[in-house]
Amino acid sequence: MTNETHRWYAARTSVEQVEEGRVLAPKFDKDGLIPVVTTDYESGEVLMVANMNAESLAKTIELGEAVYWSRSRQQLWHKGATSGLVQKVRELLIDDDQDAVWLRVDVQGGASCHVGYRSCFYRSVPIAPQADAPLADAPLDLTFTITEKVFDPKSVYGDAPNPTKL
Amino acid sequence: MTNETHRWYAARTSVEQVEEGRVLAPKFDKDGLIPVVTTDYESGEVLMVANMNAESLAKTIELGEAVYWSRSRQQLWHKGATSGLVQKVRELLIDDDQDAVWLRVDVQGGASCHVGYRSCFYRSVPIAPQADAPLADAPLDLTFTITEKVFDPKSVYGDAPNPTKL
Repeated sequence: MTNETHRWYAARTSVEQVEEGRVLAPKFDKDGLIPVVTTDYESGEVLMVANMNAESLAKTIELGEAVYWSRSRQQLWHKGATSGLVQKVRELLIDDDQDAVWLRVDVQGGASCHVGYRSCFYRSVPIAPQADAPLADAPLDLTFTITEKVFDPKSVYGDAPNPTKL
Repeated sequence: MTNETHRWYAARTSVEQVEEGRVLAPKFDKDGLIPVVTTDYESGEVLMVANMNAESLAKTIELGEAVYWSRSRQQLWHKGATSGLVQKVRELLIDDDQDAVWLRVDVQGGASCHVGYRSCFYRSVPIAPQADAPLADAPLDLTFTITEKVFDPKSVYGDAPNPTKL
């Protein structure tokens, strides 16, 4: 596999180069995407999971601000362009086989979720049922771990289409 | 879309149900997978990014231990079954549109990366070049942010095939 998508990406030539090397050689999947996890630099909280293509990763590196690829809109997604909630990248890491990215960011405005919460992960799922506390034989109940919204989505996004797809 | 893959998953009926509801209604992609980010419960460090299918998510909920789907081996991957480095799930969260999972875990043995580091994210990528410190017009240099291995992969995995693909 070659990486001719950007001058900043090396061709992937060996497992050792990819895992132990000191050169960026990202792997994009068959749709041209790489998954990205974004955490708050100070608190460590996971804010969101999204995707980048070759161009958006390069833009993120260049700007020092998170630029994702929106699958629902099929376009570059400079986070905060609409909402003002820009993510300033403090550190960008790549994983062992270079097929996932971790962004550590400061969020201007303090929220990263289009629903209005500071993180997209605001509900927990029950785990590890015990004999005396079994799980229902039905869809599981979620518990809200964050209940307060940082902003009102309607006032920020107006009539823009909701990115959530069924 | 219906979720007839497991009794614990509800059918997805509306954006409001998915985003603001109190019922688990996960979305698996066209390959039947959902991305998962796993962090250390105590430090908050991102340990790995992987995937689950419907069965592995249910197994994770049932066991309270991370069970992923291995794309390279095309089988359920109970993390630690080979290495002993089991991930005990302390909290499992789902995101706004229920198409990503966040596991907060304790790692028995203290490592989650098959290369031997405590995290799969042990290298950083340079960002935000300045006029007086431009980036090279060539593949970017990585910086190791973790340099010490917790275990020797050869002694743990022996001759098992390396999961990294070029």
